[in-house]
Amino acid sequence: MTVHIGVIGAGAIGADHVRRIGARVPGAAVVAVADIDPARAGEVASGAGARVLPSGLDVVTDPHVDAVLVTSWGPTHADYLLAAIDAGKPVFTEKPMVTTAADGLRIVEAEQSSGRRLVRVGFMRRHDAGYRAMKEVLASGEIGTPLLMHCVHRNATAPETYHSEMAIRDTAVHEIDLIRWLLDDEVVSAQVISPRRTSRRFEHLQDPQFMLFETASGVRVDLEVFVNCQYGYDIRCEVVGEMGTVELPHPADVWVRSGARLRTPVLQDWSERFAAAFDDELIEWVASVREGRASGPDSWDGYAVAAVTDAAAESLGSGEVLPVLLDKRPAFYG
Amino acid sequence: MTVHIGVIGAGAIGADHVRRIGARVPGAAVVAVADIDPARAGEVASGAGARVLPSGLDVVTDPHVDAVLVTSWGPTHADYLLAAIDAGKPVFTEKPMVTTAADGLRIVEAEQSSGRRLVRVGFMRRHDAGYRAMKEVLASGEIGTPLLMHCVHRNATAPETYHSEMAIRDTAVHEIDLIRWLLDDEVVSAQVISPRRTSRRFEHLQDPQFMLFETASGVRVDLEVFVNCQYGYDIRCEVVGEMGTVELPHPADVWVRSGARLRTPVLQDWSERFAAAFDDELIEWVASVREGRASGPDSWDGYAVAAVTDAAAESLGSGEVLPVLLDKRPAFYG
Amino acid sequence: MTVHIGVIGAGAIGADHVRRIGARVPGAAVVAVADIDPARAGEVASGAGARVLPSGLDVVTDPHVDAVLVTSWGPTHADYLLAAIDAGKPVFTEKPMVTTAADGLRIVEAEQSSGRRLVRVGFMRRHDAGYRAMKEVLASGEIGTPLLMHCVHRNATAPETYHSEMAIRDTAVHEIDLIRWLLDDEVVSAQVISPRRTSRRFEHLQDPQFMLFETASGVRVDLEVFVNCQYGYDIRCEVVGEMGTVELPHPADVWVRSGARLRTPVLQDWSERFAAAFDDELIEWVASVREGRASGPDSWDGYAVAAVTDAAAESLGSGEVLPVLLDKRPAFYG
Amino acid sequence: MTVHIGVIGAGAIGADHVRRIGARVPGAAVVAVADIDPARAGEVASGAGARVLPSGLDVVTDPHVDAVLVTSWGPTHADYLLAAIDAGKPVFTEKPMVTTAADGLRIVEAEQSSGRRLVRVGFMRRHDAGYRAMKEVLASGEIGTPLLMHCVHRNATAPETYHSEMAIRDTAVHEIDLIRWLLDDEVVSAQVISPRRTSRRFEHLQDPQFMLFETASGVRVDLEVFVNCQYGYDIRCEVVGEMGTVELPHPADVWVRSGARLRTPVLQDWSERFAAAFDDELIEWVASVREGRASGPDSWDGYAVAAVTDAAAESLGSGEVLPVLLDKRPAFYG
Repeated sequence: MTVHIGVIGAGAIGADHVRRIGARVPGAAVVAVADIDPARAGEVASGAGARVLPSGLDVVTDPHVDAVLVTSWGPTHADYLLAAIDAGKPVFTEKPMVTTAADGLRIVEAEQSSGRRLVRVGFMRRHDAGYRAMKEVLASGEIGTPLLMHCVHRNATAPETYHSEMAIRDTAVHEIDLIRWLLDDEVVSAQVISPRRTSRRFEHLQDPQFMLFETASGVRVDLEVFVNCQYGYDIRCEVVGEMGTVELPHPADVWVRSGARLRTPVLQDWSERFAAAFDDELIEWVASVREGRASGPDSWDGYAVAAVTDAAAESLGSGEVLPVLLDKRPAFYG
Repeated sequence: MTVHIGVIGAGAIGADHVRRIGARVPGAAVVAVADIDPARAGEVASGAGARVLPSGLDVVTDPHVDAVLVTSWGPTHADYLLAAIDAGKPVFTEKPMVTTAADGLRIVEAEQSSGRRLVRVGFMRRHDAGYRAMKEVLASGEIGTPLLMHCVHRNATAPETYHSEMAIRDTAVHEIDLIRWLLDDEVVSAQVISPRRTSRRFEHLQDPQFMLFETASGVRVDLEVFVNCQYGYDIRCEVVGEMGTVELPHPADVWVRSGARLRTPVLQDWSERFAAAFDDELIEWVASVREGRASGPDSWDGYAVAAVTDAAAESLGSGEVLPVLLDKRPAFYG
Repeated sequence: MTVHIGVIGAGAIGADHVRRIGARVPGAAVVAVADIDPARAGEVASGAGARVLPSGLDVVTDPHVDAVLVTSWGPTHADYLLAAIDAGKPVFTEKPMVTTAADGLRIVEAEQSSGRRLVRVGFMRRHDAGYRAMKEVLASGEIGTPLLMHCVHRNATAPETYHSEMAIRDTAVHEIDLIRWLLDDEVVSAQVISPRRTSRRFEHLQDPQFMLFETASGVRVDLEVFVNCQYGYDIRCEVVGEMGTVELPHPADVWVRSGARLRTPVLQDWSERFAAAFDDELIEWVASVREGRASGPDSWDGYAVAAVTDAAAESLGSGEVLPVLLDKRPAFYG
Repeated sequence: MTVHIGVIGAGAIGADHVRRIGARVPGAAVVAVADIDPARAGEVASGAGARVLPSGLDVVTDPHVDAVLVTSWGPTHADYLLAAIDAGKPVFTEKPMVTTAADGLRIVEAEQSSGRRLVRVGFMRRHDAGYRAMKEVLASGEIGTPLLMHCVHRNATAPETYHSEMAIRDTAVHEIDLIRWLLDDEVVSAQVISPRRTSRRFEHLQDPQFMLFETASGVRVDLEVFVNCQYGYDIRCEVVGEMGTVELPHPADVWVRSGARLRTPVLQDWSERFAAAFDDELIEWVASVREGRASGPDSWDGYAVAAVTDAAAESLGSGEVLPVLLDKRPAFYG
């Protein structure tokens, strides 16, 4: 039984998911595509043998669509998610689920009213083998209670349209989800420190940024976000416990010895770094849709992360430590 | 358009391929299964929603079968391959393609007579990201002309049924293919040296074995095969060129610091080590079947490797250097 | 021509330096030792064939002593240094040079009045091959202007006498010197954050601590100090520049594969980790004494570091960002 | 009490040892130097404040010389060692101790007649921290009985005077000593295989060479010697036991991320790679001379290694497996 998917948003990540569903995800087919640019929608749809629909809402309500994949511009997500919940259809949304905690709360409330968990958020790193192995080590108790967590998130370069707040809402968002998931804890405060800026990129951009978070149980997390580090895409993470530490591996690649150096490549691209995680995320989502069950990061996760990014975005500039304002977690989200 | 696959042999690797086709390979479905043990065939078939057929030859000739997957016992491969060639159906065979060079020659000749390249051999390591990156480095010229190649192939343990010749025909077979593929060269001699045996396993087994190969262009290759090394599944490979070397990476996994040690896991299992390569191999095979083209390691590769394993098997015990007897490569195989 | 050294303080580090001078430092001999515990002084002196003197000041003024080595309790350093300056004798002091910036200023002023640079501070890490290689990479320009620096300083365990302020004055002091030396910059603010405490040690101790520093040029430095991390002595450092990063290596040690793990030891002890640096530091000091020239970290470095530790110590508890109060560097210190 | 050392041979290694004794070895002084080139002897002697003597034999018999350091051309060692034994003086000789097993036997016999162990051979790698840690792991039993040993010995370039046999007698000699020392075993056969030659250097030279050794207990050892590998000085060693393996570390050096690469330097020079081992070797030798006891690799080691290099040198060209002809070890050598 094939799951028929409707896609809203045919930009880079949307096109990539459509290609991925065709090439790597058994039991699924993209049947409808919409985009604010119909030409782009047409291109992506024709590659998948799908129809173009006039709008995202048409995708949600199309009777041939079993499940919805939202890969449009962040601020538009909330309406599509609410529509999908209203239509009772499973919906996968790229991160960030929403761009404000207020929007997140609307999703969470609508979903509870609907009585079914329909939303899944694209925090694909939870499928990365390295992070999963970290979580297993933490669960094993070998390193004891977590006390600190050190994170690095670097991109080779960011486009000129990238502005300082995106370092929080679009980039740090992954680590904020991982703090919560790896430590099974909520973030209670956020602070954004502004180091000396790189001179290699745009004047409007505070890059790098150094972020600090505290969790409910007192774990302190630091995160360097540096989106124009020039040398590559580099993700690092270490959790420090009472008895030891666990560290995310550098991706395995060949070692070359030549010209007085021993070296290995640094990846340039997040899509390459997390290719297997993207595969597994969609394979698992399709399987859960087929089986009629919820799976993966849910709308509570999307909302809780938005609450943290709201606080961090407010701290940007002042550098103040700000509290994260988060509702009490309803039993509905387990 | 779904490719309908018939499977001959429902043992461990057969069952694994069937599961993999369902879970990870879009555009393919297993429709028929045969095994000398009909109960086993039934189990595997029912998981995939496929029919059980009385024999492997029935699978080949079944009109609903578009392509054949041979995962039966090695010595039975040749007959199924010849039947598939005769039926004009694409056929994927697990390694070793054949257990003697003579059988390999029969396949190669039948395929040429048929006028189409139909056979693909399951040398999945050619899909491993590490080996592919090695091949790219070699092609780039950065390390210059290859002179030496060092290989290690270790398994944690082998079952009691494993005997000394299997270290050559079932285990070393992967590296023999890789020598040829990475260096784009043929092996011209083989020698098997017998070091002190491990006392941890069976008396009948010469383990480890140390193998030496020479290629047509004079590259010397050494290969340690140690199938009861106790600590894990460990594959290593380094090619030494005139100006540098390139080395296969250790699989990336978490680093834990605890109890005065920094450590990372060693995998225990080949299926885990090469999981992504197995996925990619089958995905590529199915795509090539759908598109009606040949792909991947062909029957010439299977035959050439068998010629090397014949020489090595003869050297086992005496430790003599023996020539590899190989026909001239026909233009048919490019 | 042998340099005759008088040692003040025969505790662990004093005894270690005396042993080291005998075993690894050509051209030097310990001729006099004093300690508040005369028995301990006697033990250390007899091993070196030196005399015991009644007090540290006697060591300074003893006519057979060419140069003084101060390894007594931190708060006593200032008086011995002033005495040595007064006597016109080269003096090497263990870190911290002084326990307050005010004392540091007294040393700096006395030395300037004397007209000669006589004081050398035992920041031995400047002799570590790893840090030196980092400095070379920074100097080469390959990674561009520094923007961030991440540091970790972990000890397996600390004794019960170790209290929270020692994490700053005795432990972080090394990294504070390295920030200044690697970046060729002064620290202008300090902040100490208190994460969740480890439950493995003493209630009176805030452990770990997370420290933040800013330099005059805007580089942000974070430093985790965790003196009861249980698993070993672990020092890490990474400088992030506009175009790349440079990272201190993990000390080289054997790799063992066994029991499903690949592992290497983690050192347990700072004296083992920096053994070669301690050798080189004393060898260089003795050579500079013999040649009548100044060398290595000077009293300005000792004073500047004390100014930072004063600010950090004041931040401990409140977690406030506090300015570092530092005089203008006189030309005397180059 | 200072040990007065006479040095025979003021070439590169001789000059380096003289410098090292002055700079890094407490309790020793070079008092006399001889060389076939008196100008060179003069230069080295003046740096150390030593006298020039007309010949090596004069150094041995000089009454001011307590101990002799032989760093002359290999074939001249035997006569100086015999003279030192005759004079009853401790003598340190660079490797190879002798260039034939026959000469080795003369030393061994003379020493036994003299009744004292006076000769120490400069196998400095036994002092390398990495090899020592390997030996500890082997002694711990963690990896079980050794079965195989893999070695690599690469130099960036060799001078034009370097000929094929030197790969055995001057280069492989280090690993041959290590096989014996790490495994506590004797080598019983040797074989030298000639791979494709590098085109980057001299036509007269077989480079690389691939050597195979067997020990009395059946351990098989392979050794790649490649003295014009271009990229650096690279030494590797792994011992494979019944339950695990132990591997020599790559020297620790900084890690740089820049230009899409993560890289660390490869050393260019053996003197840098083994600097600490050279220090420790001479420090230990001087201490043992002072205390009147034997220490380190002895003349039996020098002789046994020569017996292996004799066999390997004979195998060069033919590639035959040749037995190592070695006398029975006398009780005198423990």
